[in-house]
Amino acid sequence: MIGYPNGKSNPSNKEKTSASNRGMSLEYDLNLTNQYYLDLDIAVIHKKPTPIQIVSVDYPKRTAAKITEAYFKIPSTTDYNGIYKGKAIDFEAKAIGSKTALPFNVIHKHQIEHLKKVRKHGGICFLIIRFNYYDETYFVDGQLIIDAYETRERASLPYKWFKENGHPIPYSLTPPVDYLKIIDKIY
Amino acid sequence: MIGYPNGKSNPSNKEKTSASNRGMSLEYDLNLTNQYYLDLDIAVIHKKPTPIQIVSVDYPKRTAAKITEAYFKIPSTTDYNGIYKGKAIDFEAKAIGSKTALPFNVIHKHQIEHLKKVRKHGGICFLIIRFNYYDETYFVDGQLIIDAYETRERASLPYKWFKENGHPIPYSLTPPVDYLKIIDKIY
Repeated sequence: MIGYPNGKSNPSNKEKTSASNRGMSLEYDLNLTNQYYLDLDIAVIHKKPTPIQIVSVDYPKRTAAKITEAYFKIPSTTDYNGIYKGKAIDFEAKAIGSKTALPFNVIHKHQIEHLKKVRKHGGICFLIIRFNYYDETYFVDGQLIIDAYETRERASLPYKWFKENGHPIPYSLTPPVDYLKIIDKIY
Repeated sequence: MIGYPNGKSNPSNKEKTSASNRGMSLEYDLNLTNQYYLDLDIAVIHKKPTPIQIVSVDYPKRTAAKITEAYFKIPSTTDYNGIYKGKAIDFEAKAIGSKTALPFNVIHKHQIEHLKKVRKHGGICFLIIRFNYYDETYFVDGQLIIDAYETRERASLPYKWFKENGHPIPYSLTPPVDYLKIIDKIY
């Protein structure tokens, strides 16, 4: 119980559960999951740092440069990548507040282009989508998302679509979001 | 000449050539190289964003959150990764001011640990080292660096070691640092 607590089951957990913080919670669960994979030598998968445009830096001391002005940049790739059983792994994760659909505007066009490139060059790409309202997390194959994005007639992908096309990732303690199990099953 | 100029051959290039800026220049060359690989659909390799600890953010407008206090974090992985011919690619790049050696302290211990993990899980890992003084760029297999790092008796790896153990990467215009050519040759 000590190593990889699931945020949900720990009453002293300090994460807030307001909608705006739920995205953080999926990220938190994925960080624990990736650390678990790393510690047990199962895979080496990391979250990429958030891309930031640095405008101004102060150097009060040599050892602690302080960034005083910077802005968030739109990511040109996905958030997570790494290696599992010799295969390149690449995915994006999104926690959704809506109980009815994933709005397409949370996925950037160049992230879709990136997923296509990854697939083309032999990597395994996918999305991990959590519907906070239902507390359900889905694994969706990258090609399905690419197709849905490119042929979309509406501005969002309905919750029902995920139930039909995604693979539910059950909660566990070790690790919280065991998505490699789905990879083992479907690829 | 328009697409991928080599910083050196372009007299109007605004990059400074002082020692402190030369690291930027290798990064610049690698960015052009990776963009070239991407545009020609040869590989999908990106530089990861610099890891930053954000302390304080202002929201003057919804669309332009301004980071007002942040600090650089020590990277826990390497700077570059991606996919080439179905294989996971992972490398670190360093431009060196010294004309005699690469000081080991420019490589963090957890970057070495990361290279070991990548290798173990089936990825291709290496270092790209540029000696600014000689204007020479070397490709060094990851295992050689790992071994040298772990058995080191001195605080640095001599320039001569790179001449003996590295593969020189010749300058070209398209792309400036054609490291995949070395991969084709040695793996």
